[in-house]
Amino acid sequence: MRQSKLFYKTEKEISKDVEAVSHKLLLRAGFVDQLMAGVYTFLPLGFRVLKKIENIIRKNMAESPLDGQEILMPCLNPKENWQKTGRWDNFDVLFKLKAGDKEYTLAPTHEEVISPLARRFVFSYKDLPFYLFQIQTKFRNEARVKSGILRTREFLMKDLYSFHAEEGDLDDYYLKVANVYLRIYSECGIGKETYQTLASGGTFSKYSHEFQTVTESGEDVIHICEECGIAVNDDIKKENNVCPNFPCRSEKFRKAKAVEVGNIFKLGTKYSLPFGLKFRAKDGIEHPVIMGCYGIGLGRLMGAVVEVNNDEKGIIWPKNVAPFQAHLIPIENNQKIIKTAEKLYQILQKEKIEVLYDDRKDKTAGEKFAEADLIGIPYRIVVSDKTAAKNSVEIKERGKKEIKLVKISSLPSFLKKNAK
Amino acid sequence: MRQSKLFYKTEKEISKDVEAVSHKLLLRAGFVDQLMAGVYTFLPLGFRVLKKIENIIRKNMAESPLDGQEILMPCLNPKENWQKTGRWDNFDVLFKLKAGDKEYTLAPTHEEVISPLARRFVFSYKDLPFYLFQIQTKFRNEARVKSGILRTREFLMKDLYSFHAEEGDLDDYYLKVANVYLRIYSECGIGKETYQTLASGGTFSKYSHEFQTVTESGEDVIHICEECGIAVNDDIKKENNVCPNFPCRSEKFRKAKAVEVGNIFKLGTKYSLPFGLKFRAKDGIEHPVIMGCYGIGLGRLMGAVVEVNNDEKGIIWPKNVAPFQAHLIPIENNQKIIKTAEKLYQILQKEKIEVLYDDRKDKTAGEKFAEADLIGIPYRIVVSDKTAAKNSVEIKERGKKEIKLVKISSLPSFLKKNAK
Repeated sequence: MRQSKLFYKTEKEISKDVEAVSHKLLLRAGFVDQLMAGVYTFLPLGFRVLKKIENIIRKNMAESPLDGQEILMPCLNPKENWQKTGRWDNFDVLFKLKAGDKEYTLAPTHEEVISPLARRFVFSYKDLPFYLFQIQTKFRNEARVKSGILRTREFLMKDLYSFHAEEGDLDDYYLKVANVYLRIYSECGIGKETYQTLASGGTFSKYSHEFQTVTESGEDVIHICEECGIAVNDDIKKENNVCPNFPCRSEKFRKAKAVEVGNIFKLGTKYSLPFGLKFRAKDGIEHPVIMGCYGIGLGRLMGAVVEVNNDEKGIIWPKNVAPFQAHLIPIENNQKIIKTAEKLYQILQKEKIEVLYDDRKDKTAGEKFAEADLIGIPYRIVVSDKTAAKNSVEIKERGKKEIKLVKISSLPSFLKKNAK
Repeated sequence: MRQSKLFYKTEKEISKDVEAVSHKLLLRAGFVDQLMAGVYTFLPLGFRVLKKIENIIRKNMAESPLDGQEILMPCLNPKENWQKTGRWDNFDVLFKLKAGDKEYTLAPTHEEVISPLARRFVFSYKDLPFYLFQIQTKFRNEARVKSGILRTREFLMKDLYSFHAEEGDLDDYYLKVANVYLRIYSECGIGKETYQTLASGGTFSKYSHEFQTVTESGEDVIHICEECGIAVNDDIKKENNVCPNFPCRSEKFRKAKAVEVGNIFKLGTKYSLPFGLKFRAKDGIEHPVIMGCYGIGLGRLMGAVVEVNNDEKGIIWPKNVAPFQAHLIPIENNQKIIKTAEKLYQILQKEKIEVLYDDRKDKTAGEKFAEADLIGIPYRIVVSDKTAAKNSVEIKERGKKEIKLVKISSLPSFLKKNAK
């Protein structure tokens, strides 16, 4: 992509009301645009990152061991389904609307749709287990929305639902999901800072699990066990002086602010009962299906990635989720340099390396570098008279100090090896 | 994918209220599920087709000559933006909602978001032209919704917006979009049945263009010029006895029912004026930006594909949008056949051929074939004692009569060559 054509604009300053680092940087670097409180547009740079995150999540959901099948459920939900579970009146952030004589909600989660849907397909124990997921827009009328894409009123969410004949089978799958979640955070570049966190489990199981990424902008507080590395949320901590992660029992905790980037929950029969989602067991007796649900908010995950990966100059995108792998920057405007840069741009594109090419002629090297640091693409490739004289380019990895001189002829293989 | 694990269920009969062929077949074959009037869930089979269509559209939007940059705008829109253009009161299918003291609409199109957004980025003629698109959920509270996914209240839409300094530039781009649209319909397998159709153009230009696919389930009527192949819609026909596609002037029209699968529109300054979207020209004078908008509904396109591609037995998916390329069906349950089928399934997966493997043991060959015809995957591969004795499989293309005997060893290359 030519930077002169890219739909973005960087800002030096941003309103003082903006507190979270990720909010500040994503607005300043032109990744997102705020339409109104808690509602954002993803601009081309932001959309590219969102898509990378989406693809990492999709792959992990669809492949073994989770074997999820992807579907797409609607945002508009009929009131009746939400009355059946009592959540029409009790789910406090529901957007509700009326059109004609029909009342709807904009779904904040999809148990009220997927449970009656599953009922049409499940009859016998032979139909179980199965796993359905979607990546879809959710709505929650949150009261406080001040942290940018960390907490919004409309957001993309991956929600996976599992359906089981037996509790033990749910337990096994739940563990698998927990492990895959940790892999997803690791692939997105926040593995080290993200903690599996015990939270209240509702009526069906003692605990559920949240995944919390430690950051100063986080609205949650977690307590990380210094022995076993599992965290507990504030509620659980109040009830336990020792680490409840059996058999740890340590009493040493480290308190940290964190943002929740996912949660997994054993629903049991909470939603299968009101919708009559049953199956006939081997012995011919009917039982309610046992369910689990597993969520990740994509925008929030993107925000958390920025919270963890930045410095005073801007964002430092982990390679897997970076909008581009390489940022090609000629710093002189003479014919020779422009020709070399254009040629390199063509070569990198041909080699399928995602490259942003700063072809702007009215910017100084300093301006270009400052923007490149703010945008945060992993590899900065500088072409100058000095480097061209050696048939080389200068490569600098964002967030590192070292500058390497690499021969132009070996640039594609260098990037393929390093930029993945 | 193993068919025994696939989340779907076929139905022999469907409610008599269901009229459109595509609606009937997509429900019967387990591609979609109706949550309520005009609101559908895409099940795994349907989701796969939707994704194929989405990728065809995305590729055509992002690549040359359209060079669109993808973004994602929100569903929730503030009332103020829609008041500014007068559409809060005049757009008759708006879903409106109130939460706290804020009023919102669920956007049925995005001029009210993208115009003020563009204003933040456009200053000079040097910033023009540019092209932004999204593939995103739209809402329209349609009064009549009886044709399945051909007309729904919630639907995925690709909307592209172009921004120009000069009318001639819009004209050029508009023509390019029209050609790319025809290519998209052709890639989706409805090229022959889809007509560029003249419709009213609003205040800025005499005509806009619809793309109409001829089918009995269509709610529109078009008149196809038998000379030049361009169609006109009913309104235009009333005003013209001769073909308005200069210099055709033919008077021979063929009337047909059709469904609109896309439209393109020169907006001119209709939305740039109310939002103050201006640019400074070379002479230093400010002008309003000239805009075009270009839409394709994904679900409706999928419905149209089925309308055009079916027979009395079921759907006949065009290869580019089929949920799977190959349907592998062993018709005996003995160890040798099962072993052969399992091996073939592994081989095809390894060769990246999308295969649905009917591994069910409790179905007869007749039941399996009937379902395969209903689902409509392009290549049916049958493994039986008879074929195995010749180290072969039987291949039949959906919608054709011929059955070919192909050596197992050359099956992957056969499919790669034919099934693309």
